[in-house]
Amino acid sequence: MPHINLPEGVPGIRGPMQFRPETAKPLNELVDILLRGPHSLSEGERELIGAYVSARNDCRYCQTIHGAIAAHHLDGNEDLVACVKQNPEGADISPKLKALLAIAAKVQVSGKEVTSQDIERARNEGASDLEIHDTVLIAAVFSMCNRYVDGLATWAPADPEFYRQRAAVIARNGYAASTIAHGAPAPIPAIAS
Amino acid sequence: MPHINLPEGVPGIRGPMQFRPETAKPLNELVDILLRGPHSLSEGERELIGAYVSARNDCRYCQTIHGAIAAHHLDGNEDLVACVKQNPEGADISPKLKALLAIAAKVQVSGKEVTSQDIERARNEGASDLEIHDTVLIAAVFSMCNRYVDGLATWAPADPEFYRQRAAVIARNGYAASTIAHGAPAPIPAIAS
Repeated sequence: MPHINLPEGVPGIRGPMQFRPETAKPLNELVDILLRGPHSLSEGERELIGAYVSARNDCRYCQTIHGAIAAHHLDGNEDLVACVKQNPEGADISPKLKALLAIAAKVQVSGKEVTSQDIERARNEGASDLEIHDTVLIAAVFSMCNRYVDGLATWAPADPEFYRQRAAVIARNGYAASTIAHGAPAPIPAIAS
Repeated sequence: MPHINLPEGVPGIRGPMQFRPETAKPLNELVDILLRGPHSLSEGERELIGAYVSARNDCRYCQTIHGAIAAHHLDGNEDLVACVKQNPEGADISPKLKALLAIAAKVQVSGKEVTSQDIERARNEGASDLEIHDTVLIAAVFSMCNRYVDGLATWAPADPEFYRQRAAVIARNGYAASTIAHGAPAPIPAIAS
């Protein structure tokens, strides 16, 4: 039961976003640029960073939907996503992504936790300034979204199939287009109701 | 010394914002709407929520600049801002704002910390759904900004006068206009150099 009167049957962050479309607009623009814009990190890698931070924050909705989007971009490899959430150092991902996830884990606790050694490790694995910047910002953005979603006690569907279907929609259309189109509430997939 | 190659002599969040103007744009739009848009909470009250969360995250730049902006809106009452940062329950502010700050303090830790009792207290003091929503989102947004600023080890000037002058500029022009104008780096006040 959400803490405030949100649109009924609308899962996760989309409830408060429909409640407050003025703030939803720049929020969706931000994640579209950060997670889907042209980049040297793939969309799957960026979604993995978001899913990992959300798992560390124990945010059920965010870790499940962004885990599903990451898997969608990674040939449906849900096992890899589960492995990254639990232990990225042991996952079958690049050494550079491991180093970036280690930075993201620090940011999840506090920005002050990030050390020059963490940055040096990422650089030694080939990370650019932009990749380090965007990793810090993605981890910070998910630290925001997790708090937004859980601070209002929004609804998270239990059925994993809901997240798979929704992931495909977001991967195809992006966040802004999938959440609020022209100020009108986005249609809710049948499975969510 | 910032962790990545940011523009020299640009304090706080403005360094990474100039480094990555694509993400700075929606970030500034978000805070302009949230902290400066038409609202039943005053600009001073909303800035107090941001300064309080930033103080709890021990983010020097954010707590100082948003504390200065709050004071600017509150007849220059820097003592009140200092009191709110340390102990909002004992500060000379409304019972409603105290209840909202208690929610913000929970969100700073985790969204899951917010209880229906916290919400009930705010409602009993007259808080609306929009005020509760925006308090949660402001606290979440500052949890992001604090991590962004500290996760990249940005520079925070020591001189309190820098923050007072900068606060006056932001109070007059807003965040987007004060940070990045038409994609060009904003001029740095003489005192910052």
